[in-house]
This record gives sequence, C-alpha cells and structure tokens, in this order.
Amino acid sequence: MSNPTAAMLVIGDEILSGRTRDSNMHYLAGELTKIGIDLKEVRFVADDHVTIINSVRSLSAKYDQVFTSGGIGPTHDDITAEAVAAAFETPIDIRADARVILQAHYDRQGVELNDARLRMARIPTGAHLIDNPISAAPGFSLQNVHVMAGVPAIFKAMIASVLPSLKGGAPLLSQTLRLECGEGDVAESLSKIASLFADISMGSYPFQKDGNYGTNIVLRGTDELRISQAKQQLSKLLDL
Amino acid sequence: MSNPTAAMLVIGDEILSGRTRDSNMHYLAGELTKIGIDLKEVRFVADDHVTIINSVRSLSAKYDQVFTSGGIGPTHDDITAEAVAAAFETPIDIRADARVILQAHYDRQGVELNDARLRMARIPTGAHLIDNPISAAPGFSLQNVHVMAGVPAIFKAMIASVLPSLKGGAPLLSQTLRLECGEGDVAESLSKIASLFADISMGSYPFQKDGNYGTNIVLRGTDELRISQAKQQLSKLLDL
Repeated sequence: MSNPTAAMLVIGDEILSGRTRDSNMHYLAGELTKIGIDLKEVRFVADDHVTIINSVRSLSAKYDQVFTSGGIGPTHDDITAEAVAAAFETPIDIRADARVILQAHYDRQGVELNDARLRMARIPTGAHLIDNPISAAPGFSLQNVHVMAGVPAIFKAMIASVLPSLKGGAPLLSQTLRLECGEGDVAESLSKIASLFADISMGSYPFQKDGNYGTNIVLRGTDELRISQAKQQLSKLLDL
Repeated sequence: MSNPTAAMLVIGDEILSGRTRDSNMHYLAGELTKIGIDLKEVRFVADDHVTIINSVRSLSAKYDQVFTSGGIGPTHDDITAEAVAAAFETPIDIRADARVILQAHYDRQGVELNDARLRMARIPTGAHLIDNPISAAPGFSLQNVHVMAGVPAIFKAMIASVLPSLKGGAPLLSQTLRLECGEGDVAESLSKIASLFADISMGSYPFQKDGNYGTNIVLRGTDELRISQAKQQLSKLLDL
C-alpha cells in the first residue's frame, strides 16, 4: 500500500521578493519523511486572496494533507485564515474558544487584547484549533488543510501539535553511495539497477570537491533490505 | 504599467524528501527583484513526467517567464527536458549545436562523450541554448520557459546568461521600519497607512530578541519617494 501524500503552501510576499529565506519547507519535509507521509508538492504564493483560495482548493483536492505556513498574524497582510475559509465556503468569525486562549495569554502579559490581536481569534466554523505553545494565537485544521504560522519557531511547535493526529505510512529510508566519478560514468549502470528495483527510487547528485567530480547516489524506499540489495548490485556493476 | 511576472518550477525528489535544502529560489528571487520582474509563484515538484508537464503548462500560461531548476543531467532521473518538450508538444532529439559543445568540453577533459552524457544534448526543436560556463551541458529556453540545472553554481551561471535577454520593469525598492513592539500594537496604524498608499505593499514581520517582541515593517514599491512618504506618515502615526 502506498503512503499518504501531502502538499505544502507557503504564503508570503517576503519570500518571493528574496527578502527572507524560507526554512519551514525543509523542516516539514524532514518530519513528514520520518512518519511516512510523502511530500509531493510545495507552492510558494504571494499574499493574494484569490491565489490562496485557488491553491488551497487545488492542493486539498489532490493530496491527503495540506500544510500552510504564514499569514495568520494580526496585521492587514495576514489573510490566510479568511482565504482558507473561503476556499471551503465556510463562515469565519471570532470564535469563543480561540478568544479565551488569546485573552488568557495577553492578560498574563498585561497587554490589551485589541481589535488587531482579536483578528487572530477568527477561526472557520468546524475547524479544529492547533495549539501554539509559543505565542498562544492558534492555528487550525479545516478538513485536510492545516493552517500554521510562518515564524519558524511557531511553525515547528504547531507541526508538533498536528503530526501525531495524522495517519502515517512506512517511513522513507535511504542509503547513499558516494562515488569519486562523474554522473556520466555511472548513468548507464544506475539506469540498469533502477529498472530492476522499481520499488527503490534512485537519485543521482553530482558534486565537485578539490577540482574532482563526484556523484552521490541516494537510494530511497521503505524496505531496508531491498535498499541494501540495490546498493550492493549497483556497487558490483560499478566494480567497487 | 505593472512589471512583468515570473514563476519558478523546482524539480527534484531530493528536496521534497528533506535530504537537500534548495537555495536557487532565494537566489532567483533576489535577482528578479533587482531587474523589476515580479516573482509570483514557486512550485517544488517530484521527478514525475506528468506532474512536470502539467506544472509547466499551467505556469507558462499564467506568467510572463518561467524558470525551471533541476533534472537536466545525464542520469535516468533527469527527465525535465523531455517533459518540457512534451508540455509544448515539441519534438526533442540530440541537437548538433549542443553536441558540439559537449564534444569540445569532454575532449578537453579527455573524457568519453558516452550515451549517458550525450543525453544532455537532447534539446527541443526551436529552443535557444542557455550557456553553461561551468560544466558545458547547456540549458535551453523554449517559448517563455527557461530550463536550467539544479546545481547552485551552474544555476547561477545560467541565470546570468538568461536575465540580460529578458524585458525587466521597475526594480522593486524597499525600506524597513524597525519597531520595538509587537505586531498587535501597530496593526491598526499600519492598516490605515496601507489603505492610503495602495501603490506601496507593506509587510509586517514579527521578531523576538532578548525576550522582547519587535516588528519589522517592510515597505515595498517602485517609487522611492512614495515609499519614504509612507514610512514617514506611519512613523508619525505611531508617535516615533
């Protein structure tokens, strides 16, 4: 049986303009690989209502789980929650449970829960809250879409809240064969072994070190024994 | 007049599995911003023929320029060139001009131009070659799609070959206002100024330093004077 699939939607002008470098994709990719959910696609889009709606609809229909990052803060450019609600034609308003969480957090800090902060309690009807142990303002899961903050520390904490509730599959395992030659020298052998092991994906990644060409062959699959067999047969074919 | 738009398509299982961290997106974003081409969307997809075809078609129809990264080497998992040709229903085969470039390169190195390496001379009919000063194997531009290598040093070199030939727009300029308070304290003022300056995009990025909350307000636009005016009015409204 094949693993569940996932997509990620990263929302924010600041990444597309080159001002900030995203780190959430790499983190999520690693966490999903560990629990056997296959990340199949990641999209980065701007803070644009219609674009977010279309992306959410398209990814939600195509993959088992969708994770969004960014755009759920208190400012005017935080439009993710509204757009996700609109994507599912679900009403969105300030919800009592989210308000209670924010009120308690700001009371502790002696800070006013003003209108801007209260926007972070806007949650679509029927969504489940995602716990935010860092700055309180919750994310939410609506159908198969999990809406999370873009700030890396908060994104990580929210991922930790969400993942245990999802059905995983067989963790993706990998082994690497490091070769001191160019890709062009191993391509034919690699292709032969790849066709013999349809259940093992084989990637070839060239590198240069001290002026010499090298290639890392990464063998990935869910069965450790099959990966080892493929690696062994490839080594033999390459006379290693 | 608004700036030309662009999208990027990053192809490769190794990024989606969390094994490698992409750096080409951040680089391209910065370069496009400098020459006034607005990067609107970036997609990361797996080494899958149909997925690449569909993504190329969708992005090529929607944006002025599309840049792809990855999957043009000599191994069996390098399927980008075939998929891009298929997306435009264009024949692809070993092309004499690309073959000459590869032959000269491998002759200089005293390395055989074997069948695997020759695959890198497969170029769609009608495409323009993109110069690769690092490892010779060229990229290509077919219609509005620019197909480049994933290895960062080669990607950068190819971008340098392609960008001068593209029509740019007004470079995107930005100014940052650093505030020692949380987003929730500035959201209302920010929203007011944002509605007065429709031509300036204003992003709000929270940070934490030494236990204190802060917010960077980034004002972006193509007119330096308007950005300064918006920044000034926001500062005044915030009593800075």
